[in-house]
Amino acid sequence: MKDRKPVYYSEYLQLDKILNAQEPESAKEGIKADDEMLFIVIHQAYELWFKQILHELRVVREVFMQPNIHNNTPDIYNSVHRLKRVCSILELTVTQMGIIETMTPLDFLDFRDLLRPASGFQSIQFKMIEATLGLKYDNRHGKAYYLSQLTQADVNRVKQAESEVSLLTLLNSWLERMPFTKNAEYWENNTGNFWTNYREAYKNSLSEIEQVNMKMFDTLFTNDAEYPEGRSFSADASRSALFIMLYRDHPLLQLPYNLLSLLLEIDQNLSMWRHRHIHMVQRTIGKRVGTGGSTGAEYLKGAADSHYIFKELAELTSFLLPRNMLPKLPEALVKDLGYCN
Amino acid sequence: MKDRKPVYYSEYLQLDKILNAQEPESAKEGIKADDEMLFIVIHQAYELWFKQILHELRVVREVFMQPNIHNNTPDIYNSVHRLKRVCSILELTVTQMGIIETMTPLDFLDFRDLLRPASGFQSIQFKMIEATLGLKYDNRHGKAYYLSQLTQADVNRVKQAESEVSLLTLLNSWLERMPFTKNAEYWENNTGNFWTNYREAYKNSLSEIEQVNMKMFDTLFTNDAEYPEGRSFSADASRSALFIMLYRDHPLLQLPYNLLSLLLEIDQNLSMWRHRHIHMVQRTIGKRVGTGGSTGAEYLKGAADSHYIFKELAELTSFLLPRNMLPKLPEALVKDLGYCN
Amino acid sequence: MKDRKPVYYSEYLQLDKILNAQEPESAKEGIKADDEMLFIVIHQAYELWFKQILHELRVVREVFMQPNIHNNTPDIYNSVHRLKRVCSILELTVTQMGIIETMTPLDFLDFRDLLRPASGFQSIQFKMIEATLGLKYDNRHGKAYYLSQLTQADVNRVKQAESEVSLLTLLNSWLERMPFTKNAEYWENNTGNFWTNYREAYKNSLSEIEQVNMKMFDTLFTNDAEYPEGRSFSADASRSALFIMLYRDHPLLQLPYNLLSLLLEIDQNLSMWRHRHIHMVQRTIGKRVGTGGSTGAEYLKGAADSHYIFKELAELTSFLLPRNMLPKLPEALVKDLGYCN
Amino acid sequence: MKDRKPVYYSEYLQLDKILNAQEPESAKEGIKADDEMLFIVIHQAYELWFKQILHELRVVREVFMQPNIHNNTPDIYNSVHRLKRVCSILELTVTQMGIIETMTPLDFLDFRDLLRPASGFQSIQFKMIEATLGLKYDNRHGKAYYLSQLTQADVNRVKQAESEVSLLTLLNSWLERMPFTKNAEYWENNTGNFWTNYREAYKNSLSEIEQVNMKMFDTLFTNDAEYPEGRSFSADASRSALFIMLYRDHPLLQLPYNLLSLLLEIDQNLSMWRHRHIHMVQRTIGKRVGTGGSTGAEYLKGAADSHYIFKELAELTSFLLPRNMLPKLPEALVKDLGYCN
Repeated sequence: MKDRKPVYYSEYLQLDKILNAQEPESAKEGIKADDEMLFIVIHQAYELWFKQILHELRVVREVFMQPNIHNNTPDIYNSVHRLKRVCSILELTVTQMGIIETMTPLDFLDFRDLLRPASGFQSIQFKMIEATLGLKYDNRHGKAYYLSQLTQADVNRVKQAESEVSLLTLLNSWLERMPFTKNAEYWENNTGNFWTNYREAYKNSLSEIEQVNMKMFDTLFTNDAEYPEGRSFSADASRSALFIMLYRDHPLLQLPYNLLSLLLEIDQNLSMWRHRHIHMVQRTIGKRVGTGGSTGAEYLKGAADSHYIFKELAELTSFLLPRNMLPKLPEALVKDLGYCN
Repeated sequence: MKDRKPVYYSEYLQLDKILNAQEPESAKEGIKADDEMLFIVIHQAYELWFKQILHELRVVREVFMQPNIHNNTPDIYNSVHRLKRVCSILELTVTQMGIIETMTPLDFLDFRDLLRPASGFQSIQFKMIEATLGLKYDNRHGKAYYLSQLTQADVNRVKQAESEVSLLTLLNSWLERMPFTKNAEYWENNTGNFWTNYREAYKNSLSEIEQVNMKMFDTLFTNDAEYPEGRSFSADASRSALFIMLYRDHPLLQLPYNLLSLLLEIDQNLSMWRHRHIHMVQRTIGKRVGTGGSTGAEYLKGAADSHYIFKELAELTSFLLPRNMLPKLPEALVKDLGYCN
Repeated sequence: MKDRKPVYYSEYLQLDKILNAQEPESAKEGIKADDEMLFIVIHQAYELWFKQILHELRVVREVFMQPNIHNNTPDIYNSVHRLKRVCSILELTVTQMGIIETMTPLDFLDFRDLLRPASGFQSIQFKMIEATLGLKYDNRHGKAYYLSQLTQADVNRVKQAESEVSLLTLLNSWLERMPFTKNAEYWENNTGNFWTNYREAYKNSLSEIEQVNMKMFDTLFTNDAEYPEGRSFSADASRSALFIMLYRDHPLLQLPYNLLSLLLEIDQNLSMWRHRHIHMVQRTIGKRVGTGGSTGAEYLKGAADSHYIFKELAELTSFLLPRNMLPKLPEALVKDLGYCN
Repeated sequence: MKDRKPVYYSEYLQLDKILNAQEPESAKEGIKADDEMLFIVIHQAYELWFKQILHELRVVREVFMQPNIHNNTPDIYNSVHRLKRVCSILELTVTQMGIIETMTPLDFLDFRDLLRPASGFQSIQFKMIEATLGLKYDNRHGKAYYLSQLTQADVNRVKQAESEVSLLTLLNSWLERMPFTKNAEYWENNTGNFWTNYREAYKNSLSEIEQVNMKMFDTLFTNDAEYPEGRSFSADASRSALFIMLYRDHPLLQLPYNLLSLLLEIDQNLSMWRHRHIHMVQRTIGKRVGTGGSTGAEYLKGAADSHYIFKELAELTSFLLPRNMLPKLPEALVKDLGYCN
């Protein structure tokens, strides 16, 4: 360490780049538009945070790309920690929208025309975040519109991100590998099949009118042959996820439960961001053409309503039972879900 | 003052009532459900804030019920101040949702069945806030469902609130009374009719493809005969509102502009509250029956999408012009929009 | 369940109590002071949250009062979950200060004299929170002043809270019981004493000028005979706490680490609350006599500077080593710190 | 407009610079330290916001450098708007601290030594913000330490900022120019001198024990000969500021009142930022040497306790009277404080 060159704040942070990257178009045209600086700075701050989110998601993805992370809990601990941070950053980005909302429509009009046809839809990093989490091109809202806004190079960058294995896919594999409900050593010889037990308990918990829920229960958890196509999670993965939600008090399942919860929270935070973004855009631009073209507002709404990536996890909540109705786990399993000493 | 009884904190705040109003149903049944306390406390905190919001809105309503508040600016100043506070409170209530989100679905299940059929839809104060702002029964989403959840006494309380003059109505009258664009002394003898001038400037600002916007412009601002029925704001009021947005830099219009902006912000904050509420409900309950009955989730979504009260104000943004294209105001009007010294 | 009386929202929440507990003094005197409602409501909201915090802390305390919670991780998991919630609530109470800050000094003066001598210092629940966490009477700032503000009944309530075993005390016992660094089976026969190893590694990490830190290191971790009196944590407990911070990646230590971190976060959030409170008080009242008497401001500052309850935990940060310099743990210990399967 | 080159999002924002300015020292050394990216990104985000705050303050300063802004209210309106935005940004920067707090001490240690001796104290823009607001070199805490941390070029930049006329100075001049309490036309011939009247009313409002406050009242508002030296605001300016606070309901004083309030809020937000910063530093580094050298923590505390720039404004709160005790203003003055129509 001793021979290292001393580090100086402004050089370390490359502030010569960061603080010299604001060139308002209005200044170029000799137009006074004091708010364009804010417009530039806040978008740059967003892009910095998007870079950080991508960084965290990639670290998590690397963890889940390991063939066997089942017992390697520092990795899961680390992943949970990083997803928590992603949630915090997303919360901040929602709050940050309040700053751009201090720009009034009239102040925006001072320089708006100068930005055509640039648009926030052209944020590649945001699309890469969605892709890294698991949003597929086919599930994107307004595909044609979205392509029309980007250069080919940028389209390629997003496509590249979509072609890599996503967190959603890795999570599915990880859940599939879990042995808790399917391992015969735990179940068949002892207390019967877990799903038979659980199905009965769940059925008993429903009032007559609620029995209609059994159909979906069976589709998802019992009849693998009828498991619907095109879902993000396989039948095995869905079962493991539900099991984790139910028995999350056991040591080995605590972190996996936190992980699932955080993915839902990321979905929620992205959704809150999109809704506040829509409000901000409507307040600042109204229903006229956005800087990115006329269908901007509808695109935003469509994306906000459909870009839920872990929706299938969220739906499992419907199939939970209160703790006092949960089937008891076999002792061997309880032991394996515990600490060692 | 000297003869007043000394005031003591806990008596002044009636803490004997406030802190003895938490009786968990689970405790009555001898069931351990530590999170029910949170469930009660947070709902009580919400109701306290709703009471405060209603209090502020009523103070503002009283101001606007005066026959001539045009020159009485302490009142407008006061109203702006109070609406700003309402916005702050609404922001807090959105943040506050984060506390209930710390309750996991499994922890909620510990006592959820004991609450049937109680439901947050039964918050009368929230409905009274909507009514006081200007939401009419006819514009409520899911009217039948909403009635089915309430006692007759509570329905009556909301109906009573709906029958009183709303802020929306009062705002419309106030805007109608404004003389700025219609006063012949300012306009006809001098620089021609304001709307003729503005129409031309607006038309010139549109590209060929955007000329399609002129139709709506004329409908709203030019041809009173064709003004659409059923709108919240009259033609006169819409014109005044647009005028305020355009010339808000003049002293007399600064507070009115702030007022309009704050009403839009209230709409936005209510919308953010509803969206976060939906997320919270879905995360905690899933798609099963809520404690208020099965159509809860759809009701929430419907209300979130349609209960915008000042929507017509928000839409005016589409018809703004940049400052450098604004028609110049006659001197007499500029003087009347200014301070006196 | 079937025979239970249906629950109705307003009855369940006892809204008749909650919403009828606001009686402004100004109204009694026929004085118009519209902001007194806010003053009452926000203090009531604070007291509701303080009640909830006390509830959570008591649940955690019960967990730690069990003689052997070492292996009973659902309890630690639950405790971590609850302390996280306490942090969220405290964050909200800091944000909530922004609402009372919308009250201007002049608006407060409209009713301030009517409240004499009531004062926020009379919030018993806040003092009980401090006591439950571990603040002792002897460590309270401005003891005489604080007693002078309360009725005897309220003093007794706080004294009662102070006499009960605090979280700080329970935490100390729990840390003392931990065998990780002192168990001869792990250490003496294998890799030598942990503290000998760690001391050497720590010493090596210090530059010449930093060697001065060794004195405090030895005082805290090596020479039990010289361990300073009057500390909250015993020598054994301090050692366990440092060990947890260092090896928190191991499964068994993950939750304990989260627990320690959350206690520090609670201290920090309380501190942020106190600082924002001081600002608010100064902005609203200035340096004149507060409603609670003349030394209010100084009392607040004194408390803000000295009421850190887990200060000794915070100080351990100074004695951490980077992961790559950490002494390797014996295999038997690593196994015992891991999961079982 | 038609001939302008189309603008593209990533070029407009110069994302090639912004997103390629992160080069972790740990990567250069081949050390795995995933959190260094966060450390870089969050500091860059801070510097972006500091640049924006400086931008807003400079716009406001330009307004107040005009010889006569008394009647030019669009400028004051604009200034209030911008200071409000500065407050919002500062609030965000406090919240943003929560992100860096997700970095644990152990994770920071992975790369901390590589950064020596860089330090956040080397943020020139933060010091320029303080200087632009009005902090003088002589009032800086720990002057020697602060100089020792900076390159000469950076010291010069701060000195340059300190040598320019500050907002504090400009505000003082603006307040001095106000005629409201000293204009003989309003006062002497009519209702006597304002300060004679106000002094009597204030004196009457004090209880016997509070009469001690009169000494300071007279020092500040009555006996110019005894006005203390070295204050930021002159006697005239202090009087105008108090007058604005008292009669802020009159149209002409509404914006000036908002302006004063926002400057106090900026002071408060800076203070909250500093306190949270101290907590973060202590939690992450403990009491060992910071990357900027050993006296870091004390410097931070000293600055937090003493860098209040508008302290004298805050203290005026002590001399307010309730509205119902305020001396009545002469009609001519009321007219001049009102709108024109």
